[in-house]
Order: sequence, then structure tokens, then C-alpha cells
Amino acid sequence: MREKADSDLVRRQNRLLLMEALRQHGAMARVEMGRHTGLSPASITSISSQLIADGILEEDTAPHVPSEGSHRRGRPTTQIDFNPKNANVVAVKVSIDGLELALADGRGAILARRTSRTATYDADPTAFGKLVADEITALLAKARVPARRVARVGIAVQGVADSQAGTVVWSPAFRTRNIAVSSVVEERLGIPCRVANDANMIAEGLIGSDRAGYGGTAAVVFMGYGVGMGLIINGQVYHGPTGAAAEFGHMNHLPDGPLCRCGRRGCVEAYVADYSLLRWASGNAATQPPSFNAIPEAHMLALEAAAHRGEAAAVSAYAKAGEALGFGLARIIAILTPSRIVLAGPGTRAMALIAPHLNRALEAGVVDELRRNVAIEVVPIDTDMIIKGTIDRALRHVDREIFAHGPPLKRGRELENIA
Amino acid sequence: MREKADSDLVRRQNRLLLMEALRQHGAMARVEMGRHTGLSPASITSISSQLIADGILEEDTAPHVPSEGSHRRGRPTTQIDFNPKNANVVAVKVSIDGLELALADGRGAILARRTSRTATYDADPTAFGKLVADEITALLAKARVPARRVARVGIAVQGVADSQAGTVVWSPAFRTRNIAVSSVVEERLGIPCRVANDANMIAEGLIGSDRAGYGGTAAVVFMGYGVGMGLIINGQVYHGPTGAAAEFGHMNHLPDGPLCRCGRRGCVEAYVADYSLLRWASGNAATQPPSFNAIPEAHMLALEAAAHRGEAAAVSAYAKAGEALGFGLARIIAILTPSRIVLAGPGTRAMALIAPHLNRALEAGVVDELRRNVAIEVVPIDTDMIIKGTIDRALRHVDREIFAHGPPLKRGRELENIA
Repeated sequence: MREKADSDLVRRQNRLLLMEALRQHGAMARVEMGRHTGLSPASITSISSQLIADGILEEDTAPHVPSEGSHRRGRPTTQIDFNPKNANVVAVKVSIDGLELALADGRGAILARRTSRTATYDADPTAFGKLVADEITALLAKARVPARRVARVGIAVQGVADSQAGTVVWSPAFRTRNIAVSSVVEERLGIPCRVANDANMIAEGLIGSDRAGYGGTAAVVFMGYGVGMGLIINGQVYHGPTGAAAEFGHMNHLPDGPLCRCGRRGCVEAYVADYSLLRWASGNAATQPPSFNAIPEAHMLALEAAAHRGEAAAVSAYAKAGEALGFGLARIIAILTPSRIVLAGPGTRAMALIAPHLNRALEAGVVDELRRNVAIEVVPIDTDMIIKGTIDRALRHVDREIFAHGPPLKRGRELENIA
Repeated sequence: MREKADSDLVRRQNRLLLMEALRQHGAMARVEMGRHTGLSPASITSISSQLIADGILEEDTAPHVPSEGSHRRGRPTTQIDFNPKNANVVAVKVSIDGLELALADGRGAILARRTSRTATYDADPTAFGKLVADEITALLAKARVPARRVARVGIAVQGVADSQAGTVVWSPAFRTRNIAVSSVVEERLGIPCRVANDANMIAEGLIGSDRAGYGGTAAVVFMGYGVGMGLIINGQVYHGPTGAAAEFGHMNHLPDGPLCRCGRRGCVEAYVADYSLLRWASGNAATQPPSFNAIPEAHMLALEAAAHRGEAAAVSAYAKAGEALGFGLARIIAILTPSRIVLAGPGTRAMALIAPHLNRALEAGVVDELRRNVAIEVVPIDTDMIIKGTIDRALRHVDREIFAHGPPLKRGRELENIA
């Protein structure tokens, strides 16, 4: 009996290994699967046949078109990929402005989108889960996909998410704290649901798009309406014991600094976020409360232009931001010695104004010997990265929690298994 | 061929699983091995027989003495444990005062010790590796154990160690930076050698002594002559890409703070370490350079007594330390949301003086929602914890890198395999 358990474990691990290779690299022939997983041809044949029989993967026998200059004949190669109909997932991005939703197929291709401009900040917190469920229902109706065909909902939110409790613990998008979301969505739609921090989802998206480049330890900083971080440790996003990890925006920079949206003083966000830059430029950061409103891009472009023209208040706002960012990253380096720090988001548009101060602070903030192994770079990320990362993570949960064990289950049994 | 590779991989994993259970829980019967590893009785029998045949484990058939009140007959139970003769390891602890060495057997029992009071600070850096090799040779001569019977040397050092390069990158124990150690020891003695940070070795020791208690994410802070941190992420010590991780002592607290031994200003250590407390109490922390001398315990006891008597300068030194420690830990919490923070080392003797300031800073430094899931505690650690953790880690390296693959190899082949 235990021997059976051992071989079941190996079988599940190998199924997962093969699915992970496909999630990362996309459709491939069996011979490539062997290269990516290290499994034997016999194992690849047996596992892939079973996954195809289960309806999780499918074969695509379209003739292989040889690339230009290739001398190989266009012999048809059997490519294997996920069956796009094997599972649908829904991603929801929650921000101050409202909700963005996307329905994706089993390969992660987006089938339908929906945007809701419901301002969340003053919304009734007990009604928020219901709002999300209603929006998902509307998205599915538009796409003519029944809820029972959706295997997972992933929700990305600014601020502190507790994935275990399924709550938004604290977010600048809400006045109230500890808002239940997962349980409400699960009850109303019967679909397992997970809440996560939006910057962690950017990190998931980056790993999904370039696993080799993010295989070690890296910190991904999002700068814009807020400041977030996705922390990648040994190639995996670090969520922490409750899913609340890597709140770089709410890491203290200076005791008794300006008031942050979280209620504490001197957080990195209170120097670097859009509202903080405008507050510094206004000249009364010490007394002015933080703004909870969405800030139009035009305001930030005007501030950048003023700084480029040399207006002292605007220049000094970016100097403060650079210093807070530099000392903050120096502290991260001292503790985690990441190989890569990646700066992303609309806030990086002003990097030319920020960089000299950031570099000076980094140098003052941590000893050369720790700093010299880290590469700091600005990457353009597409604004859809949070949605893509959330889809990617939801599909990986489906792979791990359902498909590794067997074929897609009927909703009832599946929920039992997950609960 | 690849199928063989698959089953070899499973076999190595299972050997390692069984050895890990023994390292953690000590000698046990086969039935307990099943419980700890989840392997089937058939697998346990086959793997343990092979490990016994390889001379890595041994059976102990001494009659089992039933515990008082037990109704079970004293039927002899066959306990299995590591063969103490399967491997020896040497642990070396480097500090300002000199070297401490210990030779341990394959079960981690210490067979011999040696202490050398060679001051390291002004020592010739090119001679340091040779000094360590000579001290190990003297230890082995005393214990009458030939070098070829030693499978690993582990060296724990204050400061930044680069495990990959085998160097002490920077340490308050040395004036010079980037001191080669591993390569010199390996060349002179023919024993694989690894350098690591001493606080990381305390964390290894704590995990070894209580794996359940340190199974999640925890930060272990050492306070005393310096300030160090061992970071445990998901039950494993986090060493970072180069082995230099978790330099909490050299994480910036305040820009432009007092000068630290590392050459930067305002590091946590420049507020919390013994030399810093004395410097604050002397009243001219802003201008006085840090001390690199070993500080007698009596000086620290006198400072504590002065603070308990209410002398303002001494009281204020502990207030500064508490504030730096509190904001530093608040920053760690924001990023890593550990479940446990453990304070250890001689510096914790003054916790009554430090705690009120530490708690106030923690509360000001990070939002409640992130802080409420962490337990902060002071643990007494025995002063031998660094040596024990270094032995433990060296034995686990031997398990993973040699014994998982087969029987102990002859020195020549083994070194080839490791290189």
C-alpha cells in the first residue's frame, strides 16, 4: 500500500514537471520535453499519453513549417500543448479606479475582458465580495462560459492580502480593513478563489515570461500610484506565511517622516508614490495628509516637466524619492543580497530625475562588498502584467492541485478535494 | 538509459530523506523511519540495508529498556543510527579573540577541541588560511585522526562570507578584506572546506535542535560584540546567491548615523553592538570611530549597572539601541513577515533596558496588520551554538554530496566529484 503511495507520488511529480515545462516554454515536441524535464523517452510517452487521455493536453499535428534557411525537410512534427478547453480561469485586478477582469483559457489566452469603474474606496466592504462575484458573472455571461467551466479565480489587489484567510487585510483602495473576498466569491459562484498582492503578481508574470532570468533571487519594485514589491527567492515568488510579504512600500525609511496611507510615518511609499511626489512638490509634506484619490497621469507628467525645467520644489521631490528608494534598496540588499533588482511601473518614467539620488543613497546605505553582486535595472512592463501574472498563477494552481492528480473533476468533487 | 537515471534520482532522494530524518530525530527503529519519511516498509528495508552495507548507518541491537509505567515487554528493538565512524568533520569558529576548533564524528558528537588565541585583526591575511590549516592539523594530531578521515571542514566567521569563492569578504575580525580561506585549507589538507557567516550557523543549530519550531520563516538576531542575523525561510537557512545574506547588523538604520566598523554610517550595529553602546554612553558617538578590539564582559556589565542606576548617558545608549533594533525589525517584518523573531546572544542580557524602546519603535515602524502575526522572543543560546550549527551543516553537506550517491569514496575520487 505504501509502495503504491510512493509510485503515486512519483507519478504526480512527473505529471507536474511536464506541465511546468509546457507552461514555461509553450507547445513542444516530445523530444524537447525530455530535454526540459530530464525524464526518459519512455516516461515522457507514458505521462503525455495519460495527460492527453485525461483531456489536459492535446496533440497538434499541423505540418512543421521549416524556418527560412533551414535545410531540414518540412516533416510534420507532433507538438503537444495544453488543451485550451481543459480549464478556464478568471483574473481580477482591484485598484482605486475600479475592477479589471479577464477570462482566460487553459493556455492562458485571454478570451474576454470587462472593466468596471466602481470606485472601491468608500464602497460598502460587506458588499465588495458580492460586487466581484457579480462582475465575474457578467464577464462569463458575455463570453457565454458557464461558471462550472471555470477552475479558479485569482484576485490581485494593492496592499496587504491574506491568501490563507482570503481577505484584503489593508489596501489604499479601501477605507475599511479586513475585507472578506474569497469566501464570498466561492459561495456565490462555487469557484475556488485566491487573493494576492498585485506586485507579487507582476513578479509571477516576469517569472512566467523569463524563468531563466528570474531563476535566482530578485526584487521587483513597482513604482506608480503606490509602491509595491514582488520578491523572488530561488526562482519562486515569496509570499510569506500569510501571503502578505514584501511590502516594500510600507517599509520604514525614516522614523517620524511624512504620513503614509497605511497610517504610519516615513514609509518608502510616503516618499516615492505619485501622491507623495506631488505632496513634496507642494512644499508641505510634513503636515499634509496623504491622498487616497486616483491621480491623473497628466499631473505626474506636469511634475516631471517642472523638474526638467529645474523648478526647485519639483527637483527636490524627486531627490527625496531617490534617497528613500536608494536607502530602502540598500536595506533589502543587506538582508537578501539579491542578484537582480528590477524597477518597473509608470514611476520609472522619471528615472533620469531620480537616479543620481538613488545611486548616492545606495552607496551610502550598504557596504560595497554586499552591493557589488546586484544588477539594478529598469524594465518596461506592459500594463497588463498584473492580469497576466494572475492568470499564470491560477493556471499553475490548477496544474498542481487538480491536474497533477488526474483528469479535471466535476465541480462537486473538485471542491471537496480542495477544501 | 534515462529510465535508469530517473530511478537513480528517486533512490538518491529516498536515501537523503532517510538520512535527514536520522539527523533530525536521532536513532530510531525502522517503523519510525516510515512515519518520518512517508516511505513504504519495503522501501525503508531496502534503503536502510544498503546504507548499512555502505557503512553509513549501523544497527544497534541493545535490548530496549521499557520506560517506567510502560506495559510493553522489553523486547529488543533494532535501532538504526549513523555509524559514528562513517565520517569526521571539523568546525572552526573565527572571532576577534582567535580560533575555536572542534572535531566531530559522523553523529555530530564532539571528539576533540582546540582553542587558539591568535589575534586575527592585524594578522597577515595571506597567512590566515595557513594558520587555520595548521590549527586543524594540530587538532587532528591531538585526536589521532588522519586528515583523510575528515570529510568536511566548516568555518564560521563574523561578517560577510562568500561561500562560493571561499573567502572572508569583510569581517570586523580582520583589517584586510577578501581573505582566501577555503582554497588554502583544501590545498594543504585535501579536505573540502566551506566558509559561512556565524549567525547563519546559529540558525542552522536552532533548526537542527528544533525543526518543527523553525519550520516556517524566522529571523534569528545575534546581539553582542557584533550584530548578526540568521534568516530561516521555509525551514531552510537563507544564505543568498553568494552566502553573504542577512547582514542585519549592516542594514542602515539612519542615513548619516554614527560610523560603523564596515565603513558606512548609521548601520544597526553602530547602535546595538557592544562597542556602540559604550560609544553612545561616552557621549560622542557622532565623532568617535568604532572600536575593533574585543570588549571584556565586565565593561558591558558595568554599563548595564549604570543604566539600572539611572545614569542618563547609559540609559540613553540602551534607548538608542532599542530604537535601532525596533525600526530594523519593523523593516524586516514589512519585507519578510516572519512568524518568529528570535533575539539571542549576550546583548539580550540588557533586554529590560532595551525592550520599551524596541516595542515603541516596532509599533511606529510598521502597520499593525503586518506586525500582528510575528512572535518576538528572547532565547538563551548556549555559546557553543555556532560550533554545533557548523558541525550540523558540514554533516548535512556530506549526506547530500557524498552519502546520497553511494558509500564514502576515497579522497581522490570524492574531491573530483565535488569540484
